[in-house]
Amino acid sequence: MPTLLIQNCSVLVVPETGECRVDESQDILITDGKIASITPTVPQAPADDLETLDATGLLAVPGLINAHTHSPMVMMRGAAEDLSIDNWFNQKIWPMEMNLTPERVRVGARLACAEMLLAGVTTFVDHYFHAEQIAQVAIELGIRANLAPTFFTSTGPESREAAFEAARQIRALGNNRVTASLGPHAPYTVSEEDLRRTAEVAQSENFRIHLHAAETQDQTTSSQSQHGATPIQILHRTGILESGALIAHACGLVNEDLPLLAEYADRTTIATCPKVYLKLAMGPTTPIKQLQSANVPVAIGTDGAAVHNTLDLWESLRLTALTQKHQEQDAEWMSLSQTLRLATRNGAQASHQNTGTLTPGRQADITLVDLSSPHNQPLHNPLAALVYSIRPTDVVHVVVDGEVVVHDRTLTTADLTEILTQANGVAHTLVDLTKPGAVQRYAP
Amino acid sequence: MPTLLIQNCSVLVVPETGECRVDESQDILITDGKIASITPTVPQAPADDLETLDATGLLAVPGLINAHTHSPMVMMRGAAEDLSIDNWFNQKIWPMEMNLTPERVRVGARLACAEMLLAGVTTFVDHYFHAEQIAQVAIELGIRANLAPTFFTSTGPESREAAFEAARQIRALGNNRVTASLGPHAPYTVSEEDLRRTAEVAQSENFRIHLHAAETQDQTTSSQSQHGATPIQILHRTGILESGALIAHACGLVNEDLPLLAEYADRTTIATCPKVYLKLAMGPTTPIKQLQSANVPVAIGTDGAAVHNTLDLWESLRLTALTQKHQEQDAEWMSLSQTLRLATRNGAQASHQNTGTLTPGRQADITLVDLSSPHNQPLHNPLAALVYSIRPTDVVHVVVDGEVVVHDRTLTTADLTEILTQANGVAHTLVDLTKPGAVQRYAP
Repeated sequence: MPTLLIQNCSVLVVPETGECRVDESQDILITDGKIASITPTVPQAPADDLETLDATGLLAVPGLINAHTHSPMVMMRGAAEDLSIDNWFNQKIWPMEMNLTPERVRVGARLACAEMLLAGVTTFVDHYFHAEQIAQVAIELGIRANLAPTFFTSTGPESREAAFEAARQIRALGNNRVTASLGPHAPYTVSEEDLRRTAEVAQSENFRIHLHAAETQDQTTSSQSQHGATPIQILHRTGILESGALIAHACGLVNEDLPLLAEYADRTTIATCPKVYLKLAMGPTTPIKQLQSANVPVAIGTDGAAVHNTLDLWESLRLTALTQKHQEQDAEWMSLSQTLRLATRNGAQASHQNTGTLTPGRQADITLVDLSSPHNQPLHNPLAALVYSIRPTDVVHVVVDGEVVVHDRTLTTADLTEILTQANGVAHTLVDLTKPGAVQRYAP
Repeated sequence: MPTLLIQNCSVLVVPETGECRVDESQDILITDGKIASITPTVPQAPADDLETLDATGLLAVPGLINAHTHSPMVMMRGAAEDLSIDNWFNQKIWPMEMNLTPERVRVGARLACAEMLLAGVTTFVDHYFHAEQIAQVAIELGIRANLAPTFFTSTGPESREAAFEAARQIRALGNNRVTASLGPHAPYTVSEEDLRRTAEVAQSENFRIHLHAAETQDQTTSSQSQHGATPIQILHRTGILESGALIAHACGLVNEDLPLLAEYADRTTIATCPKVYLKLAMGPTTPIKQLQSANVPVAIGTDGAAVHNTLDLWESLRLTALTQKHQEQDAEWMSLSQTLRLATRNGAQASHQNTGTLTPGRQADITLVDLSSPHNQPLHNPLAALVYSIRPTDVVHVVVDGEVVVHDRTLTTADLTEILTQANGVAHTLVDLTKPGAVQRYAP
């Protein structure tokens, strides 16, 4: 891969603790897909083996990481509105998912990856059916991805084993940007036996596990009465926590869950998706303050666009800051720097990648933003702009693994018009509710 | 004013009750600044006295109405972050406002009006100092505005009378798009005597009143212990409610307030600005469900960008839907149609204008949006796109009073580069904290 030099940008520095800062007038040198150096700008003579990207006036931020989504669900965007969580699942989404085919998933994933890349997301952590299709799309469009093939217990042990096999096949692609996890859906849809089997496969084959748990307080209460254990206790006793898990939501945590999560804090990440908790009226959001006290990292996701309506991680990180301040009734909590850390450094932990900061030695996943438009001006504080006023359209260039995949707000790896035409061609088939049945029933 | 024909757009219809809908392939004819007709598209021969705007592929929505803001505060965007409401006022904003001058207010208002127009806001309801400058800017840029010159009791009766005089002078401009209200700050910063005097002037000179009240539950409790009355009871006994008021926030309502607001529901509007309540950890948001039961209309505002960071009404309306569902723990409440009604029809009540719907006879304030970008596709439901996935950059053309003030994402009435250069030239002076004192002290 040729050497890339990003010239004359500002650089967002996200330290492990403490305040983020912006270094002005820097050059970022990238070799073999990694950041080789970040140094004060010097005029550079053109060289044959050096690709250059003029970033004058732009701010380089670590590529955003969408720590939990179901990318092909963009195909159901806007098709299930103003519904309770029960009705959203049982009347709309799970019946609609009877219409999934490998081809439709591929078409949806292409639209999703285009939306994410154009908005500065360089990695997404996905949980869905036909994940091998999503892998092909990620490779085509050049986005980094960790993909967990979804399964339920209700569809039998064959579907469980097929999901494991899909994870193995994604790994076998040997692509630098695409990795796999195991994807049981949730403790309320996957039996303890199947969770145990998942933990065994994870440990013997060195996979991590990505699943939903404790999505609401109601789920926790229901789990306690049905199983005598909270969802997190079930993850503990089935070996899921020991294997290393990315847990989506965890809004329904209770006190006894925290020591269990703390015990495996070195291999656990929680993904929070606050727009979803508001929109489905799910109750309190993820208790990040408590999780942080237990040293459990929290990253930020969008969840699927069938409820989130966008795959805009800027929106998610802004809502994380806002809802955390509200829930804790503490306007100083979830500061600008804390919020940016969740979307970058902690996202890298969620996706298990050597990304998340602009530091020599890390993979070169970089989003270059232009903060000169009226809605960010005057720019008293670029950190505040990144959290509270930026728009996805402020993203100008996006680099993944050293490759410029978005240049001047245009996808370089695929034809956006074709992606949209394709998506519109099959969109109606995915929201069709005439087919009987559902992929699952929501009754946690 | 010439006749304008907007050709071949879809049109959002916002009825007084019930579901919104979209009518496809319509022509909107505008004469004398008013909508003359909306009819199915027919091919139109060019005519000398007919300006045309091709809106093929675009959706026309009623121009958004920002029902409560302090527009020049864009100059402090990002300069007061991660602070409690007390510290935000007392350490930052009110000391910074010692730096206000007519010229700096004018510069800030130009940036604010540019930001709002480009994002599809056609009317703003403002509350600030040096409001005569803001009036001049609104006229220059062509945005509709209702302006309330701010005063506190602490600065003496002269400042109160000067604020009334400023309102009279704005009215005397005789501009079709710019109206004035009286602007006492709030019951915790303005004495009952001054509120009574405001009500007298309002009633004798036919002004409406725009003020803050019951911003938090703490303010209500404090008012009860200091004055033996809630903020709303104070507005009632001083004649403010009788005069007709736009009340910002009203998050701290208690049961006894509702009958008082209901009594004057025909002349009262509440403005809700939910991002602010989250960010400053102010507690519960505006109780819209209760207000609606009392027939009191609620409109949506941004508040000032010193806390909201944007003047993006799409963001405010989305957060209104999300936070209302959360607060009421009812995902069916604050539906797509209810939310769109708040930002349009109810905004027109807040600003006391003949706008807010696309209906023959109403003033022609129209925002044309393009929903063809990936983040809105596939477009199963345009109402869902308007509430949950649209970006301000999807706004293509904006018409105010029949005039095209934004054409193809470009301001037609002023030079955006000059506005930004001017703003950046004085931005540092407005966040200077070296001057002693403060315009007011926050101690409600």
